[in-house]
Amino acid sequence: MIPKAVRIREVGPRDGFQNEPETIATEDKVRLVEMLARTGLRRLEVTSFVRADVVPQLADGREVLERADIPEHVSVSVLVPNMRGLEAALEVREKIDEVNVFLSASETHNRHNVNRSVEESLTGLEHVLARATEEGLRCEGVISTSFGCPYEGYVPFERVFEIAKRLSVSGAVEIGFGDTTGMANPVQVGEFFRRAHEEIVGAELTAHFHDTRGQALANVLAALEVGVDSFESSFGELGGCPVPPGATGNVASEDLVSMLHEMGIETGVDLAKLLDAARAAQEVLGRPLGSHTLVAGPVEWHAERDPFKENPPR
Amino acid sequence: MIPKAVRIREVGPRDGFQNEPETIATEDKVRLVEMLARTGLRRLEVTSFVRADVVPQLADGREVLERADIPEHVSVSVLVPNMRGLEAALEVREKIDEVNVFLSASETHNRHNVNRSVEESLTGLEHVLARATEEGLRCEGVISTSFGCPYEGYVPFERVFEIAKRLSVSGAVEIGFGDTTGMANPVQVGEFFRRAHEEIVGAELTAHFHDTRGQALANVLAALEVGVDSFESSFGELGGCPVPPGATGNVASEDLVSMLHEMGIETGVDLAKLLDAARAAQEVLGRPLGSHTLVAGPVEWHAERDPFKENPPR
Repeated sequence: MIPKAVRIREVGPRDGFQNEPETIATEDKVRLVEMLARTGLRRLEVTSFVRADVVPQLADGREVLERADIPEHVSVSVLVPNMRGLEAALEVREKIDEVNVFLSASETHNRHNVNRSVEESLTGLEHVLARATEEGLRCEGVISTSFGCPYEGYVPFERVFEIAKRLSVSGAVEIGFGDTTGMANPVQVGEFFRRAHEEIVGAELTAHFHDTRGQALANVLAALEVGVDSFESSFGELGGCPVPPGATGNVASEDLVSMLHEMGIETGVDLAKLLDAARAAQEVLGRPLGSHTLVAGPVEWHAERDPFKENPPR
Repeated sequence: MIPKAVRIREVGPRDGFQNEPETIATEDKVRLVEMLARTGLRRLEVTSFVRADVVPQLADGREVLERADIPEHVSVSVLVPNMRGLEAALEVREKIDEVNVFLSASETHNRHNVNRSVEESLTGLEHVLARATEEGLRCEGVISTSFGCPYEGYVPFERVFEIAKRLSVSGAVEIGFGDTTGMANPVQVGEFFRRAHEEIVGAELTAHFHDTRGQALANVLAALEVGVDSFESSFGELGGCPVPPGATGNVASEDLVSMLHEMGIETGVDLAKLLDAARAAQEVLGRPLGSHTLVAGPVEWHAERDPFKENPPR
């Protein structure tokens, strides 16, 4: 029932770094991206092409892409908010495999975030997706506040699915569902993805959870149980628009990988190398990061005996 | 399949406070215990009767019990390590409903913790359980390192069940399984409790998880899915022998309650009052506590609409 292997997209260099108040040197970004690209991760969101006055931290996105030495097997993605962002990304087309576009499922959050109605966002993104697809780029559409909105509360599943279908028919081959402020719970997640798999046919469905209320890995488990096999996370537990300030945002990649491996699920990731990257980020940022596995270390069983091998699930 | 209601034992005043390096004033302990006792919690571990030179923080256990005004519906438990501890507890018999005895499933951990072999511990505790039962006290036997040992690694399920059965036949009507250093994962937990329910008949089985690697609530979910309906947790995420220092220990009661309520599972607890108690503990201890829900606040849905009501699980 639970997938034997999952795909993970590391979003730290974009979603994590953009939330850092102090400018990170381009060479540090390049080094961290290169470390991540050598962990066995197959999907890596490297930067965004957002206006430099809006997200100054990622103003060097193009330079990071040009300088970072990333192995062929890693699918490099960048976030583009609109056609202008896409055109900027296309100037380094050969460095990019995928683009992500985004909007929120709730009107109020979308208005706060990009100053547009959901319909206006969708109309704009349909053009972006068409153009990116023409250029041979793989497209992901990310829907924020898919599991609840801090302004509006409940967001109907049907509304989220409707947006997902619009993105899908416009060219998004993958839809990411973001729990932007950590409102999802496991019962909801199970029911959401069970229906989503029925309703949204032909697109890969990806779960992006936040650990705001400590439930990220419980939500991962609930998603796995209904067949979700694609996740997004951020090394070092970086980023993810912590609301309120100080709260936890994105689930840490190393906590996700640690749990999946303990459960006998393959990720392709070398956890030790991922922890090295998180430790390096900690040094660059000059503060302790919140990931559990970074603090506690991974679980180490001795003598090749562990509960999974000794007691395989029936 | 998932239980509609669960029982929670709050262990913070014992398991949490005992790990605090600075002495907490008796009056503060009394006040926090009284706050917890008015949250709707029905089980509260108030203190221990361990030698004062071993756990000086809880040397005032008897006084806390005598002074705290605890409603009748709250079942008060204390930890007793041995017959001497039980005899001390019996001096305030009328203040106590339950006693907890404990040992580790792994030899090395038990040796480190109480300087005895598992067999020596069991023999001693059998007498304690018999005497406590004679006195009309309800008895819980807690088995540490049930899901793995930091020294020995894998602990065979059969070994844990064997110890549980010994405790059960000696008078423990409840067996608590402790994930002492957070080594459990959801696949293991599901398989463990599925078998435990078959093997250990006639005792209530309680799960006690730590969030060392961020998996506590995922493990709670896995346990719920195989019918576990009794949990232990600590308000403010206090205590739980963090290994290594700085790591997370016990899962926070407010994070547990928050997830359960969001999932539509009854606990009887008023989450707002529980958060008040955790905030009060934060003030007493003079440092920010790690519970997610304390930082982020509970999820608040508006207008009586929430995902659980709108999309009841099929």
